[in-house]
Amino acid sequence: MELYAQPDRFDQPVEGSLLAAIDIGSNSFHMVVARLVAGELKTLDIMSEKVQLAAGLDESGILSEEAQQRGIDCLRRFAERIKELPRSAIRAVATNALREATNRSEFTDRAAGVLGLPLQVISGHEEARLIYLGVAHTLSDDTGRRLVIDIGGGSTECIIGERFESRLLESLQLGCVSFNEEFFPGGTISDKGFQQAKMAAMQELLSIRRNYRRMGWDSCVGSSGTAKAISQCCIELGVTSGDITAEGLNQLKHYLLKFNQADDIALTSIKPERKAVLTAGTAIMCAIFESLDIQCMTYSDGALREGVLYDMAGRLRHEDVRERTIRALMKRHHIDARHAANVEATALILLAQVRNSWQLTEDEYHDMLCWSARTLEIGLTISHNRYHRHSAYLLQHCDMPGFSNTEQLLLAFLARAHRRKLPKDEWKLLPGDKQQPYLRLSLLLRLAVILHRSRSKARLPAISVQADAQRLSISFPRGWLNHHPLTLADLESEAEFLKSMDYKLKFS
Amino acid sequence: MELYAQPDRFDQPVEGSLLAAIDIGSNSFHMVVARLVAGELKTLDIMSEKVQLAAGLDESGILSEEAQQRGIDCLRRFAERIKELPRSAIRAVATNALREATNRSEFTDRAAGVLGLPLQVISGHEEARLIYLGVAHTLSDDTGRRLVIDIGGGSTECIIGERFESRLLESLQLGCVSFNEEFFPGGTISDKGFQQAKMAAMQELLSIRRNYRRMGWDSCVGSSGTAKAISQCCIELGVTSGDITAEGLNQLKHYLLKFNQADDIALTSIKPERKAVLTAGTAIMCAIFESLDIQCMTYSDGALREGVLYDMAGRLRHEDVRERTIRALMKRHHIDARHAANVEATALILLAQVRNSWQLTEDEYHDMLCWSARTLEIGLTISHNRYHRHSAYLLQHCDMPGFSNTEQLLLAFLARAHRRKLPKDEWKLLPGDKQQPYLRLSLLLRLAVILHRSRSKARLPAISVQADAQRLSISFPRGWLNHHPLTLADLESEAEFLKSMDYKLKFS
Repeated sequence: MELYAQPDRFDQPVEGSLLAAIDIGSNSFHMVVARLVAGELKTLDIMSEKVQLAAGLDESGILSEEAQQRGIDCLRRFAERIKELPRSAIRAVATNALREATNRSEFTDRAAGVLGLPLQVISGHEEARLIYLGVAHTLSDDTGRRLVIDIGGGSTECIIGERFESRLLESLQLGCVSFNEEFFPGGTISDKGFQQAKMAAMQELLSIRRNYRRMGWDSCVGSSGTAKAISQCCIELGVTSGDITAEGLNQLKHYLLKFNQADDIALTSIKPERKAVLTAGTAIMCAIFESLDIQCMTYSDGALREGVLYDMAGRLRHEDVRERTIRALMKRHHIDARHAANVEATALILLAQVRNSWQLTEDEYHDMLCWSARTLEIGLTISHNRYHRHSAYLLQHCDMPGFSNTEQLLLAFLARAHRRKLPKDEWKLLPGDKQQPYLRLSLLLRLAVILHRSRSKARLPAISVQADAQRLSISFPRGWLNHHPLTLADLESEAEFLKSMDYKLKFS
Repeated sequence: MELYAQPDRFDQPVEGSLLAAIDIGSNSFHMVVARLVAGELKTLDIMSEKVQLAAGLDESGILSEEAQQRGIDCLRRFAERIKELPRSAIRAVATNALREATNRSEFTDRAAGVLGLPLQVISGHEEARLIYLGVAHTLSDDTGRRLVIDIGGGSTECIIGERFESRLLESLQLGCVSFNEEFFPGGTISDKGFQQAKMAAMQELLSIRRNYRRMGWDSCVGSSGTAKAISQCCIELGVTSGDITAEGLNQLKHYLLKFNQADDIALTSIKPERKAVLTAGTAIMCAIFESLDIQCMTYSDGALREGVLYDMAGRLRHEDVRERTIRALMKRHHIDARHAANVEATALILLAQVRNSWQLTEDEYHDMLCWSARTLEIGLTISHNRYHRHSAYLLQHCDMPGFSNTEQLLLAFLARAHRRKLPKDEWKLLPGDKQQPYLRLSLLLRLAVILHRSRSKARLPAISVQADAQRLSISFPRGWLNHHPLTLADLESEAEFLKSMDYKLKFS
């Protein structure tokens, strides 16, 4: 394990740093460990296990205990391999199976315990962005516009991009595991099942077909297990030397339909456990070729996990895509940027004074406080009436590249809580370990908002703040509050609001 | 009652038509009846009663039985006066007290029974728009930019506009009835209560002060009971000849603070029942003058009820502001207008064939179907994932000039229900008499969406539709469905979805 030894702190992209990405997929779990060398990532280790998490989802969206156990067992093996890495050098993301699971927190809590870091459930949109990033890094720089297709166990991502930027992103509810359950139950292969699976995929593809064809692409790339398996089959059947073509798919389909049971498939180039979902994956691929009129697709071994790694490396180099997302959101919602900057600056001054006593020293809290201050008012585009609720809705549901679902939930909470009553019910929905720090961040933001409520250009006086467990004390320069009776009245109301969460606010 | 006799049908703005508007305010109920003469409204009759509905709201938002009874008794008297008018010539709107009441449907159901037409609860934003419309019609055309202030029983509307168009609209939670309850309980007048009331109003005004001052105005107008009473007091105290000035307000304040009890106020120019809320109203007006730096305000007797009348007259002349609202919404959310027009056209063709058998003959259904078809996809600006839910959220919460809260709820339902599963829970939340027709409209919209799902430019074939109670049968030209297997598959899924609402879908 000496391989993975490195400095304890991980604030800077130290040359030679190790990074690890874990992909909790609906079909397989993957982990990749890489070393950052001259800005490039050199892969050191890859682990993959076929967990088939999605197969453990029942009709009502409950993820079975058995499937959870399979997943946790796999993560234990992964954890063993990365135990020497600092936790900040690891990122674990989960996709469709956990997006769908209504009891997902059972699993994410156990997974966090095993890995020693939170598992981030990401949206389909974010998954698509990261896949593109992963694939783009495996390709040469100059192939023009690319269509990337990633058929996963629970969802299929379709992305059009150029170089490292994605232009169109969609995540569709098509997956080789879920389709296998639905159309080939018990591994039974049939012509009818294949037709139905393909038709269901065509229906789903209708929603994107027109936009994708209109934008167009110069080359088409497939990633992940299904594309890899089909590519290998094309070779084994002697149709192509690795490209996936319409003709190759057609021959593969006829080949597969000769069997009645998935176990009997006689291909030797694919892993035995892949056979179970190959027919469903082939049906989906056929639908994609037909719907988007694709003739030829190459296979790339870049995928979600590589995208996660490059995204982490970008953040380390201060190219955090989240900054750009927040800027776009502010622009689209016509945020009063000067006011937002004032609130942010004041909130940071308050944070600086209480970060030690309130244990808010991690970078995460600093960053989230900044992003929150800039997005508190996006709900004003819907209506002034109760706009903090609208801001929260938008922050929770908008496509926000770079943010995990939990991060969006936390930003939504901070917006929801930034004025009027403190929303106790929403607060209780936050992950347990986030409740205390984010309530405290919210109190700082609320104060900053009160201090800038008049939106005047007058500079604020020097304010000193002290915090202990359940109390916040603010001192203003002598006489200032008497000359600002509205702020005084606001602080009095605020002290009342805080009582509901057992916090005391003192000011003088 | 011969006065009010007129033709039964009311589709056209017949010269000499009568219109009636009822304003269910938090303090008073008003009714005005007017005749449409040469495009202008001539007032024939005005009734006002001090019902003080807002005084019957308890802490948890329950409107007391006594207050409801006072309201219903008043509406009975109003109903008596308009019993000969066709219901389509009457519009009844309710404002803040019913916006706040959690048990509002108890009252609105009883009121609808008494009036023979639905009572529309409107948003504060819509109230502000209608007030401005009412005031603008009482003023000469050329006074430049106007600030209109309407202090009501439960809310205060502040509008800046030019001619008949409002530019800035806000509804604030300041009302002479609610403030009277809070700061002058039992009619006790005190210096401290006045200061607190004014301070609370100043806090609320902070949210608009900067924007309003920045836009600016050339003249300032007050409307409704509080402004009228203060104007009369200024005359009686000998300060002005009817204008409300900063000096007049100051003198009135000092005069009122000489009394300990509202009943003892010795002014003779105002009605006895106005005394109860005069001090609270004066405190709010003082805060508005100070916050917005107003020197002088004139009084206009145009108000919400006149605005409602002019809005109705506009709709009759096909100047329905709702059309403009929908256009603005489509633009702001980058709606694919060609696709929306296709869906709308097909939905109308379907409606034409079933309107009699499904009792969807009223204009309302035609209009709402059109507006719905144009706004189904506005949620795409938030995310493609579950966008029908986002469309519904936006339609329910956006400021939509011209639409009542119920109309927004119905549009939200149609968007929510336009794809995937039919949302039974949301459907049950619709007003009882809207459930059947809007479910049926939703089935028509869903079909139109399916038929245009490919977004192709190919023309649809001639389709014939037949409806009876719980069944819809569609006939396509022979062979068409066989050549359109995706549409066929969609119709098969649709037949499954409809079963959940006990409807049958047949197609051939």
